[in-house]
Amino acid sequence: MIRIAVCAPSTPITSADAERVKALALAEFPQLDLVIHEQCFAEEGHFAGSDDVRTAALVECANDPSVDAVWFARGGYGACRIAEAVLERFDHAAQGKTFLGYSDAGNLLGGLYRERIGRPVHAPMLADIRREGGEDAVRRTLAFVSGERSGLEPSLAGEKHPVVAFNLMTLAMLCGTRLMPGLAGHVVMVEEVSEYLYAVDRLFFHLTAHLGGIAGLRLGRVSDVPGNDRPFGSDVPEIARYWCDRHAIPFLGSADIGHDAANRIVPFGLAEAGQGQ
Amino acid sequence: MIRIAVCAPSTPITSADAERVKALALAEFPQLDLVIHEQCFAEEGHFAGSDDVRTAALVECANDPSVDAVWFARGGYGACRIAEAVLERFDHAAQGKTFLGYSDAGNLLGGLYRERIGRPVHAPMLADIRREGGEDAVRRTLAFVSGERSGLEPSLAGEKHPVVAFNLMTLAMLCGTRLMPGLAGHVVMVEEVSEYLYAVDRLFFHLTAHLGGIAGLRLGRVSDVPGNDRPFGSDVPEIARYWCDRHAIPFLGSADIGHDAANRIVPFGLAEAGQGQ
Repeated sequence: MIRIAVCAPSTPITSADAERVKALALAEFPQLDLVIHEQCFAEEGHFAGSDDVRTAALVECANDPSVDAVWFARGGYGACRIAEAVLERFDHAAQGKTFLGYSDAGNLLGGLYRERIGRPVHAPMLADIRREGGEDAVRRTLAFVSGERSGLEPSLAGEKHPVVAFNLMTLAMLCGTRLMPGLAGHVVMVEEVSEYLYAVDRLFFHLTAHLGGIAGLRLGRVSDVPGNDRPFGSDVPEIARYWCDRHAIPFLGSADIGHDAANRIVPFGLAEAGQGQ
Repeated sequence: MIRIAVCAPSTPITSADAERVKALALAEFPQLDLVIHEQCFAEEGHFAGSDDVRTAALVECANDPSVDAVWFARGGYGACRIAEAVLERFDHAAQGKTFLGYSDAGNLLGGLYRERIGRPVHAPMLADIRREGGEDAVRRTLAFVSGERSGLEPSLAGEKHPVVAFNLMTLAMLCGTRLMPGLAGHVVMVEEVSEYLYAVDRLFFHLTAHLGGIAGLRLGRVSDVPGNDRPFGSDVPEIARYWCDRHAIPFLGSADIGHDAANRIVPFGLAEAGQGQ
């Protein structure tokens, strides 16, 4: 059996969503033991419990020697408040684990990668079950933890550089903090949701100033862009290319990631031997 | 006569707004010669003309020896795209000038302050004429350029540290870029508008990581906060204090600045002798 512990470092999930994913896992992945921490349902203001409650649950999951993978339940906002305290409390048992999530969970993936703890993986989360086609997103993560590699982001096949994947806003906010990993020589994939095009441009202004020395940038999907009072004047690939050019960052084209059910899997770091399709 | 040149490094203004401000200046500030650059009415996508057009207009105003002050017409978004190119083209005539604006214009104020060019001043802009009470905001800037000091932010009286004032998002995005001034030993004032509380918290997470060594932070108004699907759980002063505490930054209380007609004036740097009220 492979044991997956689910906790919520940002915002809470519903028990209905948890039950749906447990049922799917039981039916289709009998080799997985999915343990959903009660903290996932806690509520305190915006968050899935106070900073202390969320910290304690994540530390408990990561330091449990019987757990193989820690799966973040949902994004939203909140992981940056606890990430430093969490990482300081991780012990030896956290080292061998896989940590999976995206969006706001990128604060933890980034911090883990910086500290070389475990194996951070950009992957769909439990709460993605709510999306149209969300069962496929959840299956992709459960299959990956089971050893299946068909859900990997396609460009990873043959990629010789280490790779990371982040939400654009999350990575922009990580820059210069104690959670920001060194990304020199990396291919950096970014995706975004629900931001105006002018805000996307502004995030690229900021982010590319911090990404000098990366191997290149790949652009995931930028979805649900709100309409502004007037057209911005350039589209997202043009924005990304413009700011990459200003900082001599190679623009490598698209990445198959995003805030959607098709969001593919990106293990941080160098591709494993044979992980390509 | 004191000559003020108005240009728009971000987004355009209307000729109606320009006429209103010209009429006000003519009636109440006969010692001022307000020259509004045609570029203020240019439109290209989101911006008041292309990057080249906005750059050329600002450089023309700053390098004109007959101009005493450059007044940014309006914020929005766009100054960060041109600020570096603009500053490189400033000549000797720019050195003695006052540059006034706030919000997105903070990208220029920050870059000017970093490069020690002229005198950057956080101050209401021409487009503030549209606000309720907007005539008073415009009067405050015109009076300041005329030598009047009653519009200064009140805490400047007796402040011994150099001071700067920024929009929170603008300053957060400046961090780590070639426009970011060194702020060690400074009192930093921030204000915000139209951001969710979770986004404000996230901006403080990012910004305070870059502000180690400042003399302290003052919180301006954070207005038009959109309602979220659930209460955040803490208010803006609590958020500011929390992140200041995490980075050992003294939290100094409130600042009388914001995206509103009451927005007071903050000349960057050390207070002038006798500028207090």
